[in-house]
Amino acid sequence: MPVKLIQSTPSAYTYPLLIKQLLHTPLATAPDQEISYRGGLRYSYREFRQRLGRLANTLSALGVEAGQTVAVMDWDSHRYLECFFAVPMMGAILQTVNVRLSAEQILYTLNHAEADVVLVNEEFFPLLASIAPRLKRVRHFVLISDEAAPKAAPVTLAGEYEALLGAAAADYDFPDFDENAQATVFYTTGTTGEPKGVYFSHRQLVLHTLSLASALGTAPGQGRMHREDVYMPITPMFHVHAWGFPYLATMLGLRQVYPGKYMPDSLLRLIREEKVTYSHCVPTILHMLLTHPHTAEVDFSGWKVVIGGSALPQAQAIAAMKRGIDLFTGYGMSETCPVLTLANLNSADLELATEAQATLRAKTGRPMPLVDLRVVDPHMAELAHDGAATGEVVVRTPWLTQGYLRAPEASEHLWDGGYLHTQDIGHIDARGFLKITDRIKDVIKTAGEWTSSLALEDVVGKHEAVHEVAVIGVPDEKWGERPLALVVLKPDFDGKVTEHTIRNFSAHLIEATGISRHGVLLQVQFVQALAKTSVGKINKRAMREERLG
Amino acid sequence: MPVKLIQSTPSAYTYPLLIKQLLHTPLATAPDQEISYRGGLRYSYREFRQRLGRLANTLSALGVEAGQTVAVMDWDSHRYLECFFAVPMMGAILQTVNVRLSAEQILYTLNHAEADVVLVNEEFFPLLASIAPRLKRVRHFVLISDEAAPKAAPVTLAGEYEALLGAAAADYDFPDFDENAQATVFYTTGTTGEPKGVYFSHRQLVLHTLSLASALGTAPGQGRMHREDVYMPITPMFHVHAWGFPYLATMLGLRQVYPGKYMPDSLLRLIREEKVTYSHCVPTILHMLLTHPHTAEVDFSGWKVVIGGSALPQAQAIAAMKRGIDLFTGYGMSETCPVLTLANLNSADLELATEAQATLRAKTGRPMPLVDLRVVDPHMAELAHDGAATGEVVVRTPWLTQGYLRAPEASEHLWDGGYLHTQDIGHIDARGFLKITDRIKDVIKTAGEWTSSLALEDVVGKHEAVHEVAVIGVPDEKWGERPLALVVLKPDFDGKVTEHTIRNFSAHLIEATGISRHGVLLQVQFVQALAKTSVGKINKRAMREERLG
Repeated sequence: MPVKLIQSTPSAYTYPLLIKQLLHTPLATAPDQEISYRGGLRYSYREFRQRLGRLANTLSALGVEAGQTVAVMDWDSHRYLECFFAVPMMGAILQTVNVRLSAEQILYTLNHAEADVVLVNEEFFPLLASIAPRLKRVRHFVLISDEAAPKAAPVTLAGEYEALLGAAAADYDFPDFDENAQATVFYTTGTTGEPKGVYFSHRQLVLHTLSLASALGTAPGQGRMHREDVYMPITPMFHVHAWGFPYLATMLGLRQVYPGKYMPDSLLRLIREEKVTYSHCVPTILHMLLTHPHTAEVDFSGWKVVIGGSALPQAQAIAAMKRGIDLFTGYGMSETCPVLTLANLNSADLELATEAQATLRAKTGRPMPLVDLRVVDPHMAELAHDGAATGEVVVRTPWLTQGYLRAPEASEHLWDGGYLHTQDIGHIDARGFLKITDRIKDVIKTAGEWTSSLALEDVVGKHEAVHEVAVIGVPDEKWGERPLALVVLKPDFDGKVTEHTIRNFSAHLIEATGISRHGVLLQVQFVQALAKTSVGKINKRAMREERLG
Repeated sequence: MPVKLIQSTPSAYTYPLLIKQLLHTPLATAPDQEISYRGGLRYSYREFRQRLGRLANTLSALGVEAGQTVAVMDWDSHRYLECFFAVPMMGAILQTVNVRLSAEQILYTLNHAEADVVLVNEEFFPLLASIAPRLKRVRHFVLISDEAAPKAAPVTLAGEYEALLGAAAADYDFPDFDENAQATVFYTTGTTGEPKGVYFSHRQLVLHTLSLASALGTAPGQGRMHREDVYMPITPMFHVHAWGFPYLATMLGLRQVYPGKYMPDSLLRLIREEKVTYSHCVPTILHMLLTHPHTAEVDFSGWKVVIGGSALPQAQAIAAMKRGIDLFTGYGMSETCPVLTLANLNSADLELATEAQATLRAKTGRPMPLVDLRVVDPHMAELAHDGAATGEVVVRTPWLTQGYLRAPEASEHLWDGGYLHTQDIGHIDARGFLKITDRIKDVIKTAGEWTSSLALEDVVGKHEAVHEVAVIGVPDEKWGERPLALVVLKPDFDGKVTEHTIRNFSAHLIEATGISRHGVLLQVQFVQALAKTSVGKINKRAMREERLG
């Protein structure tokens, strides 16, 4: 296209989208606003900015240069927030280490990302001891500790974080550079193979922040974010930039609370004492908070919570709503920075009964600005927004990882056809609400169409005799694949129903509800137990391999 | 800086920031939302998208190619909105013609921008007749008319807008291209010289839209924009993209109302009948609406209005607030796309008495995200945010014109030292509120410091004998410049006070209020009348020239 590009006069500033630019507004409009750590340490944005300078000077003194990688192993802290900004603002790369991985996986990711410096909380010393001799490139370790007398370190330390910052100058002139400079890297783990590195640029993080602010800010009422909110993350900062909220909260100049390690009683205390109004978490954490012995002491009303990571069970949504929590779903993944969609309700939706509202709040949400999100058939043709047509969710936004780090084949697979493949299966309704129904690897492809294994499991599970069920696709000459339900019966029903009974019951329901065109091809087989993974998740992969075996 | 740039796998989509990308969200989430023209014509966003295709096909058929310029001369209409999108989305450039300029100036801008096609409302036929023979490059004219039987045209027409669109196909595959492609051009007029062209790229308009959404969305309450607002512009679409709001309203999927030519009774009718909740205008228009004979018939409560263009008089702010209008100030100019700052109040501010609130609402506001706005001394050193230190407002954002079209000298002057010079003088307080106090050309530079002529005029004007006053700087060997007040006395006081009296009165007040260090150097001279411009504005330039003369 012979478009006409704009010309810049030589003195004009061609503004790059850099993470440092997010700080202009809060420093001008909220310099005295507070950032706190576990309700103890408190400081202002003005001091935050000075600490960014101190941290950058500290890292420079350790030899960190633009393009090098600084890894962090810490719980959610003001220090982590400082690293979110200062490390990329220097032109270096922040590696957020998933401290819940195995020692071997952490070793792999530090070596693969070529970490030069590691900031490590003393809690991870035992882990560090087991991997330190095999770290290939790390030159310095910086101690992170909340204790007056930290533990003995298994490695030589360059110093302790606070002491180093205290000794460093606050002045640091964060330079301009290309907005496509890499800012962060972290690793995603599948069920097989080594962890895969995803990476994001300054431009991507700035645009993600602006779009998230636009979407959450302009929500009619439910779940909306505004500049008087008090923010506390409850999704770890090592996990996909804590969903990008620390950048957002900082740009908006919010009061921020960093909770350290997630312990239910301290989270409950902080929500109460710090009057937290905005958080995000996975359903498991919310469940933990709502069932904790001290839960009744907390007034949750006015607490807005974005739920993600896995599907929000309706019963849990209702329980949370009854406690006054304004919860709703967000959707994204490591590869997507992460946010793609948000399920903020309209005013009219708030007139609905609790159950109907809960259904909407548990949907995966609607795309935020600039998100081109589609459900497509296996030939990449876009499907109708009719709340029924089901296909893979593919997406384009300005903030998607442009590949997996040094994994060209997986990168091309991720971006097959020019759209990022989420590997999720779902449908979109006329209002634009996406509903994820399955993972693509668990979907059954029959005669070129997709049937959700989860939907069929819901149906089979409705029979009173069924204790557990997993539906998988098995090869079929005529259909390609057809669905097979592996069923564990309740002890009482053992020998009292036949596979045929369950099949007919299910086929009838499938036809009546119209959930799937080819679902009626369902076969049923009784088994003693379902294959599970080491963490107790149903392992359909193992089941499929066994059938092919 | 040897930063590490992110690598894109070959199949990855490297997402450019293009105006077409603003449409993803509304088309997915609000396809049935309504856009209307003068309360008559109404259509959905779905149809809007189809009409963009029809318009692009129409223009293509007229030979419009990427990089060419399409000029529009119309009042605020759905057609203008269509041009805001379709023209740049083709890769062409939209020239928004200021139809309030003189015929000669309009001729100049059309020739200077090298307009290839002009879409012209029949109302401007007399004007067109006077300039058509001298248009250098225009190949086609497209008629815009709201009448069944349009007037006879002074030029050969390629057709009428609606007829052409009706005959064109709706399918048009808007291509991807460089986000730095020029999207718009329009002209700004100073007191001297030819109009100067400013120009904005796709990237700039997308970022302006996102930042505006972030700022207005996350406002705590006062003046906030959300997705259930109903938008109607009352700043012309030919003037700095109607402050960028049509792009914003469209991205958010708002219901939109385009009012045609601004006539007070029809604006009042639309506000009432269409239940408009969000607008923007200059103080003059608001004044017109509040003093119109039919004003009492309109319930203005819940109507949010951004005021800009010139300072909002406090009395007018109070009058508007008493009518239930939620008004506040925005700040920017043609060169800045335009929005830089917005004066949304905090919740606590809303507890203030009406007068104190009005003062805040009339301030120029606080910077929106990504805006690096400073007041600087003549050596470009940044001044303190103390609500007193006064200097020139300079700015960096990602959406500033990168120069004046084919005017290299003026462009370099605009961007002197790497910041865009607004030519406005003001100060910033501890909360980040900017207050514009003067235009730099009217400021008096004494001993390297600046004194606001407006502030001194306020002081002199407090004397009961003073009818009119203008303060200008006159050359002074010792001080560089010193202030001179040209005073027109009230007839009753003629011959009854001396220049000395006024001088002493003023000097005393200046010292007492501390408004200026060098203000006490003020001299006073009585005159019969103040020089004015053709439109009745005080002409300090003429006064200064006369003194130097």
